[in-house]
Amino acid sequence: MGTTQLESVPEPKYWHLKTVLTEALDSEFSVGEILPNERDLAARFGVARATLRQALEQLELEGRLQRRRGVGTTVAPPRVGVAVGAEGHTWPGATGDDWQPTDCTDVVPPAAVADLLETEQGEQVHTVRRSRVSQGRPVAAELLYIPHSSVPDLSAIDAPSGAARARAVLRELQHLELEGRDQAVELGSVSAEDAKELDRLPGAPVLVVTTRFHSGGRTAAVSVATYRADTCRLTFGGDIEIHHGPERRAS
Amino acid sequence: MGTTQLESVPEPKYWHLKTVLTEALDSEFSVGEILPNERDLAARFGVARATLRQALEQLELEGRLQRRRGVGTTVAPPRVGVAVGAEGHTWPGATGDDWQPTDCTDVVPPAAVADLLETEQGEQVHTVRRSRVSQGRPVAAELLYIPHSSVPDLSAIDAPSGAARARAVLRELQHLELEGRDQAVELGSVSAEDAKELDRLPGAPVLVVTTRFHSGGRTAAVSVATYRADTCRLTFGGDIEIHHGPERRAS
Repeated sequence: MGTTQLESVPEPKYWHLKTVLTEALDSEFSVGEILPNERDLAARFGVARATLRQALEQLELEGRLQRRRGVGTTVAPPRVGVAVGAEGHTWPGATGDDWQPTDCTDVVPPAAVADLLETEQGEQVHTVRRSRVSQGRPVAAELLYIPHSSVPDLSAIDAPSGAARARAVLRELQHLELEGRDQAVELGSVSAEDAKELDRLPGAPVLVVTTRFHSGGRTAAVSVATYRADTCRLTFGGDIEIHHGPERRAS
Repeated sequence: MGTTQLESVPEPKYWHLKTVLTEALDSEFSVGEILPNERDLAARFGVARATLRQALEQLELEGRLQRRRGVGTTVAPPRVGVAVGAEGHTWPGATGDDWQPTDCTDVVPPAAVADLLETEQGEQVHTVRRSRVSQGRPVAAELLYIPHSSVPDLSAIDAPSGAARARAVLRELQHLELEGRDQAVELGSVSAEDAKELDRLPGAPVLVVTTRFHSGGRTAAVSVATYRADTCRLTFGGDIEIHHGPERRAS
């Protein structure tokens, strides 16, 4: 952990620029402020625009900057802790969760989801679309895959589509007893559709949380939730108020 | 969730290219294969290099491609599930965990960590550096911050530095009784030092897992672990074998 190791790693130009920019953000800019355009910034720091762009991308990854559609690059507020464990991904449709169902259709799930659900190839499942709002801001978009066998009593007279259909499916799901859940978190890039919902540019980095719900000894539902990586810190079993970047790490 | 919404979102050029590239990866390339250089790829698909680079970055975020130091861009193997909940972040130093202590120094922790530890401003803490290897590959680098008050019986005759010192501190830590843990996961960019250890380029996206360990009604230690985001899927309470990108999502 000495400085020897650090010195032996050649420091890329954008990395140094990032450090300089971080200091400028701390001292000259306030949260929400719009940064000068790339050309002006590159000129001010005497770097090529490609170098500047790399440094800005780093700072976006670390949650210091936000690129906002039609606004430009702004100084980001601290990330918000969003509960993702048992508190945040309760049995879908349970009273009091902060997920809003918006739609429900029948689709053939992606192969990886079909594997988890153990559905047949080409078999359609109920796919409920939900969105999660935290502190007034959209933080996650979810696709919840539910095999027809998990909600066998869904009546033909229930709403055929839309949010009403979604609520009917979730209401039926509540008849099952939740026995357990497991989860995985990984990095992804946001689809055009989710990007719109989350107010991001398509392809922006997101944290993808896959939750498998067990009931009756099998997988009763699978949730694939896309969280904004710029504004969210996913918390498990409590909220840790921490905001760090390498520049604040011990060396 | 209909196609109407999707169609109303203008599809950026790199997004379309990404879809085309994904198909090419599936049909023409195998895991570990090195991609042609950017100039050749841009020529083949008839796009500007900047567009190509954006598409490659997307595919890297989704874990389909890896950029490797001195090798180039290769087709990535499926991500490996790494347990991060209670199984993966046991009480530090517990027998049988897969963390290797490599160093230990006294440092003033970053302000955010000091807040969690409730140490005084400028107060030094033991900082143990550990690395985690999964299936023969380095997957995470950790800084574990332990206030002196958590290990009051650490003897002056214990090793003064290095891995031996780290083991002595962890051995003392075992005398405390672990009462609980909470965790947070967020996106970060890898520091030059961690990059070397994880065989990544500085600034590459990483998943930062902060774990707070409680004992005796206070925070006894804080772990800040940096996981490779390209090769790892962090699992909680079991391993979900899933690999998804927007192209496999229902629409």
